[in-house]
Amino acid sequence: MKKRVAVIGAGPSGTAVLRAFQSAAAKGADIPEIVCFEKQDDWGGLWNYTWRTGTDEFGEPVHCSMYRYLWSNGPKECLEFADYTFEEHFGRPIASYPPRAVLWDYIKGRVEKAGVRDWVRFRTPVRHLSYDDKSGKFSITSHDLRKDKVTTETFDHVIVCAGHFSTPHVPEFPGFTSFNGRVLHAHDFRDAMEFKGKDILIVGRSYSAEDIGSQCYKYGAKSITTTYRSRPMGFKWPSNWEEKPLLQRVDNRTAYFKDGTSREIDAIILCTGYQHYFPFIEDPLRMRTENRLWPLNVYKGVVWEDNPKLHYIGMQDQFFTFNMFDAQAWYSRDVILGRIPLPSQAEMRKDSAEWRAREEKLEDAEQMIWYQGDYVKQLIGMTDYPSFDIDTVCKTFIEWEHHKAEDIMGFRNNSYRSVMTGKMSPKHHTPWLQAMDDSLESYLKSS
Amino acid sequence: MKKRVAVIGAGPSGTAVLRAFQSAAAKGADIPEIVCFEKQDDWGGLWNYTWRTGTDEFGEPVHCSMYRYLWSNGPKECLEFADYTFEEHFGRPIASYPPRAVLWDYIKGRVEKAGVRDWVRFRTPVRHLSYDDKSGKFSITSHDLRKDKVTTETFDHVIVCAGHFSTPHVPEFPGFTSFNGRVLHAHDFRDAMEFKGKDILIVGRSYSAEDIGSQCYKYGAKSITTTYRSRPMGFKWPSNWEEKPLLQRVDNRTAYFKDGTSREIDAIILCTGYQHYFPFIEDPLRMRTENRLWPLNVYKGVVWEDNPKLHYIGMQDQFFTFNMFDAQAWYSRDVILGRIPLPSQAEMRKDSAEWRAREEKLEDAEQMIWYQGDYVKQLIGMTDYPSFDIDTVCKTFIEWEHHKAEDIMGFRNNSYRSVMTGKMSPKHHTPWLQAMDDSLESYLKSS
Repeated sequence: MKKRVAVIGAGPSGTAVLRAFQSAAAKGADIPEIVCFEKQDDWGGLWNYTWRTGTDEFGEPVHCSMYRYLWSNGPKECLEFADYTFEEHFGRPIASYPPRAVLWDYIKGRVEKAGVRDWVRFRTPVRHLSYDDKSGKFSITSHDLRKDKVTTETFDHVIVCAGHFSTPHVPEFPGFTSFNGRVLHAHDFRDAMEFKGKDILIVGRSYSAEDIGSQCYKYGAKSITTTYRSRPMGFKWPSNWEEKPLLQRVDNRTAYFKDGTSREIDAIILCTGYQHYFPFIEDPLRMRTENRLWPLNVYKGVVWEDNPKLHYIGMQDQFFTFNMFDAQAWYSRDVILGRIPLPSQAEMRKDSAEWRAREEKLEDAEQMIWYQGDYVKQLIGMTDYPSFDIDTVCKTFIEWEHHKAEDIMGFRNNSYRSVMTGKMSPKHHTPWLQAMDDSLESYLKSS
Repeated sequence: MKKRVAVIGAGPSGTAVLRAFQSAAAKGADIPEIVCFEKQDDWGGLWNYTWRTGTDEFGEPVHCSMYRYLWSNGPKECLEFADYTFEEHFGRPIASYPPRAVLWDYIKGRVEKAGVRDWVRFRTPVRHLSYDDKSGKFSITSHDLRKDKVTTETFDHVIVCAGHFSTPHVPEFPGFTSFNGRVLHAHDFRDAMEFKGKDILIVGRSYSAEDIGSQCYKYGAKSITTTYRSRPMGFKWPSNWEEKPLLQRVDNRTAYFKDGTSREIDAIILCTGYQHYFPFIEDPLRMRTENRLWPLNVYKGVVWEDNPKLHYIGMQDQFFTFNMFDAQAWYSRDVILGRIPLPSQAEMRKDSAEWRAREEKLEDAEQMIWYQGDYVKQLIGMTDYPSFDIDTVCKTFIEWEHHKAEDIMGFRNNSYRSVMTGKMSPKHHTPWLQAMDDSLESYLKSS
């Protein structure tokens, strides 16, 4: 009997797992049967855009946190797959900060080439995942939405690739109930043009706040006010952008801040982060964590220590993304194939505790980048995933941070060298702030 | 061993069930243990307003389809509880079209008086409902969100009171992906002030379209365009309100209609109805139906014919509401208490088929009202729920339809007689179109 492996989610993490197993098979390995459950209608996870918010046409919560006009907020040279370069996909080097459609095309290109689409059951959310001690197998109940059919099957291994930027963390502030404008979370933000000519308030200071604010600026918001709990983002913002200490309350259209100031606003966008939210996983198997570089109870960031036949991919806070998911996917695969033996539970916990202790001492973004680089390096050393120059990628991240500090509305005009091809990426034909068309066709035009 | 009955949902239907059992206990009956699972933080179902949309603070889909400034769109004399009048609750007669807060207060008042709050587990959504043939019991897996604890328990009977105006039906029209404004479903509509000065497009021709359009008009939208598939609503709309045949596509900010006309719009509100959506119920127990007066497979509109220990309350399309849920709840209770014997499955199916056949011949709203009146009458005749003059309620419904036809922006200024108290309701102190404050305090002011 062939072993059966379930993969939950076909986003960047899930498709990395599919490609990992397919690449082993291509080299002659005998691989298990892979069944990938994907609730959306296509693969690519968050890169698969929809205009929908709330619940979708089947009544399911909309997974998409993507918005129109989103361009990568980090250099593509830091996330490039080591086994499938941008140059291979597009036939030539392309510029460093591609918009969403270009990145989605790239992710899909690899798995289309691998020919694994029929491993995926689209429009099939998992309703329940549990483990039976007696049989030593997992039970997965899933809902084929198109056939409206619920079925339960057993698996030997499960790899959770469900993502953690999809279920918003939505705090309440006094006065929200009677605020006379729209209050939304970044998860429901879709088209910056909705806020053209508006005074918007953004709650938060992380990537969503920075990027959604920048989108609104680019597409004509009248003013942007951001409000922070701990400290300002501190970028050199345009003149109609102001950072304020924490929002205290709103009253009709007025927002009041901790420094005693106030201002009139038309809409409130909560850029307050996301939850690791897996209600379909039974308690003993369910990861509960804040968003951080080293979540606990996953050995090597992957193996569920309470039941090592269960793996999680991509659950970390992220500098490294696509190629880190790859490193995890190849590692997960090799554990399942029996190529990598696991130590005792006590040893796994000890190893995780050491990584966590080191994580807790990190003081700034630069240290975090090197830390995550070390993690990726360790994983890649254990499998046949193509090795690449991780130190140089870390340096590219640090250069990117400097470019942002220099010019937050212009950092996307820079280019970086691919460590995979050794080639410098070309400059894009239009500065980001003037590039209103985010289509693949427009981006790939040569000038 | 006491029997255990699970009630799923503590809205108007679920609280009717709680009150039904409590009233039997108050008269000396030996009642089962009742456990009511409620996913929201308070009872009252849709009448429990929140500013939230999408997912809530626990990551759960927001149940609320309620919006600010909502006033009952039908006379309260048609929905009054026969065992707890408005006059009993408020200490005096009140006007006929109360705003949300007043109706919520009324619903809560009855069950607070009954003292059944501790039967309810708030913030506890049901994850899975199944039936075990061998034991003859239901199994319910529920998630206590506050403790983040998932547990499974067994029950002898289950009554599904989960509502069917909470999961939107959201169609797509060509161009939605690139529309430059907000596209939302009525489910996510909260504050009409967001659309002040805007040109809005409403898709749909039923209660939501009519009422959300009226809200937007009342609170200052620049224009309202509604678009219908079958036929216009045909009310005497204000001059900035236009009915158009079906939307064909949108392109940037322009909407194109089937008659070849087009217009510029700022936002699109989909008033396209709701789904009966119970993904937590295993297939053989799960109701699947459009919204209609006679859904199939529920004997007397309540008893699941494939497993008569499972009941559904409030699943019909509705003229009658609160007191129809009561009639169903009292009937469900008496079936469970063994006071009302059930016929064979074949006889149940035959009875349902007859109701369905009659439903399919109904030609207009007036006939539908009498049909649902007959249904309520039949149920009430079988239990000790206080009998009331259903024919007169039907006539009040018909009067209400006429009042709407006469003056769609003024019909709420009318008053009707309570069949429970025999008293005429007073006129409200302010015409609806001028009454901007929808608070309970404002409504109950005597002049």
